[in-house]
Amino acid sequence: MNSEQLTHGTIRDLSRLLRRRKLSPVELLEATLSRIESENAKLNAYITVLAEPARAEAKQAEQEIRKGRYRGLLHGIPVSVKDLFYTRGIRTTAGSKIFADFIPHADATVVTALRQAGAVLVGKTNLHELAYGITSNNPHYGPVRNPHGETQIPGGSSGGSGAVVAAGLCVASLGTDTGGSIRVPASYCGVVGFKPTFDLVNRDGVIPLGWSLDHVGPLARTVWDAAVMLQAIAPSLRPRDLLARIKDGVRGLVVGVPENYFFDRLVPDVEQAVLTAVRKLEQLGARIEPLRLPGMADATELSRITLLAEATALHQRQLRKRRQDFGDDVRLLLEQGEFILATDYLNAQRARCRFINELTSVFAKVAVILTPTTPITAPRIGELQVQIKGDNEDVRLATTRLVRALNFAGMPALSIPCGTDRGGLPIGLQIIGKAGDDVTVLRCGHAFESAAISNAEAQQVGEVSRP
Amino acid sequence: MNSEQLTHGTIRDLSRLLRRRKLSPVELLEATLSRIESENAKLNAYITVLAEPARAEAKQAEQEIRKGRYRGLLHGIPVSVKDLFYTRGIRTTAGSKIFADFIPHADATVVTALRQAGAVLVGKTNLHELAYGITSNNPHYGPVRNPHGETQIPGGSSGGSGAVVAAGLCVASLGTDTGGSIRVPASYCGVVGFKPTFDLVNRDGVIPLGWSLDHVGPLARTVWDAAVMLQAIAPSLRPRDLLARIKDGVRGLVVGVPENYFFDRLVPDVEQAVLTAVRKLEQLGARIEPLRLPGMADATELSRITLLAEATALHQRQLRKRRQDFGDDVRLLLEQGEFILATDYLNAQRARCRFINELTSVFAKVAVILTPTTPITAPRIGELQVQIKGDNEDVRLATTRLVRALNFAGMPALSIPCGTDRGGLPIGLQIIGKAGDDVTVLRCGHAFESAAISNAEAQQVGEVSRP
Repeated sequence: MNSEQLTHGTIRDLSRLLRRRKLSPVELLEATLSRIESENAKLNAYITVLAEPARAEAKQAEQEIRKGRYRGLLHGIPVSVKDLFYTRGIRTTAGSKIFADFIPHADATVVTALRQAGAVLVGKTNLHELAYGITSNNPHYGPVRNPHGETQIPGGSSGGSGAVVAAGLCVASLGTDTGGSIRVPASYCGVVGFKPTFDLVNRDGVIPLGWSLDHVGPLARTVWDAAVMLQAIAPSLRPRDLLARIKDGVRGLVVGVPENYFFDRLVPDVEQAVLTAVRKLEQLGARIEPLRLPGMADATELSRITLLAEATALHQRQLRKRRQDFGDDVRLLLEQGEFILATDYLNAQRARCRFINELTSVFAKVAVILTPTTPITAPRIGELQVQIKGDNEDVRLATTRLVRALNFAGMPALSIPCGTDRGGLPIGLQIIGKAGDDVTVLRCGHAFESAAISNAEAQQVGEVSRP
Repeated sequence: MNSEQLTHGTIRDLSRLLRRRKLSPVELLEATLSRIESENAKLNAYITVLAEPARAEAKQAEQEIRKGRYRGLLHGIPVSVKDLFYTRGIRTTAGSKIFADFIPHADATVVTALRQAGAVLVGKTNLHELAYGITSNNPHYGPVRNPHGETQIPGGSSGGSGAVVAAGLCVASLGTDTGGSIRVPASYCGVVGFKPTFDLVNRDGVIPLGWSLDHVGPLARTVWDAAVMLQAIAPSLRPRDLLARIKDGVRGLVVGVPENYFFDRLVPDVEQAVLTAVRKLEQLGARIEPLRLPGMADATELSRITLLAEATALHQRQLRKRRQDFGDDVRLLLEQGEFILATDYLNAQRARCRFINELTSVFAKVAVILTPTTPITAPRIGELQVQIKGDNEDVRLATTRLVRALNFAGMPALSIPCGTDRGGLPIGLQIIGKAGDDVTVLRCGHAFESAAISNAEAQQVGEVSRP
């Protein structure tokens, strides 16, 4: 294996080599650190690179494996976590000035879990300030750049995690998703991102943004890899034979495709790539079921109100003391949150109960729902508006409008690559499941991925409408 | 048994007679209806008396028992429910003009449960408008009067339920408790009132006030009777042999008595009656443990903010359309709720989590906590201020300051009579337990009640300070 193969390998391939001692964790780490050395200055995807601690961990992994104490599929695998996760003795900035000097006394529960699985923590990824935005254009630590086009955003808020997985700066990463923050960078960077069912993954030691909306989940190169990461961080995950179960294929699976909302305003490349993906799943034996989804636009807006209130409740004290230390966009959002009334918040939660009931009832008829992850591909850094079928739309609203309602509903949602646009930028397919049925979402994603739509096929799409 | 004995009997005594066919449900009901006839005009405790439907139910119960189809301890027992519970085909006013003509299409889940247990529903009790207050001085249906003194309030919001149980206008009643609304009328009317653990009792078909604070529970003549009612309406209650378990006594039970907050500002009669009750429990074998309770004043205030927001979120639409149809006090509270910010509400909920954790940790050391239910005995109707040890205090704040935090915490709390003041007005003892440990609370209450502190003993107290 050459260095490129090492740094772009999957957990599946690399773990096989590691377990058989055909590859040393130290060798794999050094290839990764070299790549970080050559690429990170450009991508600005890591805030902190943990070269020396990682070398010690890789050394330990090497020794353990040599002694036959193989811990499992993550043993010796270089991973990263968004700089929102507590790391003991290592500063945890949350991409903010507020937390610039914060050094936690303990690891987040999921960081402990990764360490116990034998993973090697190579760094902490850059993100949108406080995870409160989707561009990862960070005013304090600099913008993260998209490996598929350095003038483009990687999406956010877990933008660094998307970029490092896409660019080979680690094998997999942990992010958080409050309104699309795992799935959006997965979509824009061309990797797999999974937001599990709400509260399936422990959030202790993860700096919160909106506690009724925050989810922890993996970004990885394949669905199988994401499932390996998920198993490590979700001890209560059922079934325990997840990795076998996701290989069951989609024959006979009823797959819903919304006729409304999700396909209403897409750039044509995205629309065609996603419809091609739907046909592919049909060819694989899935039964495609057109459906209408209730209340998506309302849920998206109510989710926004919910987050405005929750985020300001969390950060209000700092906002009052250090207003000038927040970036303009985040400060404005936090200030908006100061004006939300309790009655509006509470009525949003009442509507949320109804929305969850209605959306849950859809899963009586279908196993999963397929949609695009984002209606566009990665916009340029600094771009505020995008054009979709001739209409201008705010970048942030456009980017989040197909993902946000699933945070409101707490349902599992996966983004996997399903081609690229004419400019070579990745397109994401979103697969949504019923709360608690994470396995079926991953199974559908795995089947699609295994069928490996070629880029060539995906690129046979119509006009590119990006400005 | 004479008529007085019938209408003031307990479920325990009456059910024994009913089961053995020494008493007919029809005879018992007629005695009750006679008493309602003679007393209700004065007490104004029922909004709706269901004489004819109750006669049909009593007749049916009589026939069933005669045929040997005895349903259990509530079979043939005349009960009432607060006029906040949906009753199919029977108007459910919530003590308001807003719901004056509301006729539900179905019974509340707990009403169905009582009917299935064979109870005879004799009427729907008067209450504080919308259950939003503690005087039961209802501007639309008239004030409820206290059977122990007709110029005094019965407490609220389940004031009618307290009055009818105290005056023999039914054997037991269902109320709701959002900030003391079962325990306060129990205390002021000299009956037993129990607020179970949050969500132990189903609330479907109960007009809500504050959904994170609302509890359904019984008012009855004895703890054992309250337990019978609770068993009927809480199918998930454990242990199933509750009625046996509450007879276990208090020998060796560790009973906490707070040194702070709960005994800080009481009228002397209440203080002495409650301290006498504490000594009585010690004599019965309980180990008394002085303790300090954290954050009670804050929790009481945060509970108030929580309720202001939740109640207004529920009633805001009607408030905007029909402002003039609300009583002055309720309208003012609903208007206050319009100004609560979402961040304040959310920060109250964060503090709530901490408070619950802290209070729960106290139960590592004690099984139950004893306090007064109310710092005063029943004030006069219309009285706005009471004098406690020379200081004036708002009647509503004084009445609720020892009970409200338990709604915030969701913990079970019982009020049982522990004597009377020099004016003959009842005094309530509050017994608080750990969430889910309703049985120990009832067990402690049953032991105290069985030891039957005589009125004479309770009346050997100091100066009466009522104005």
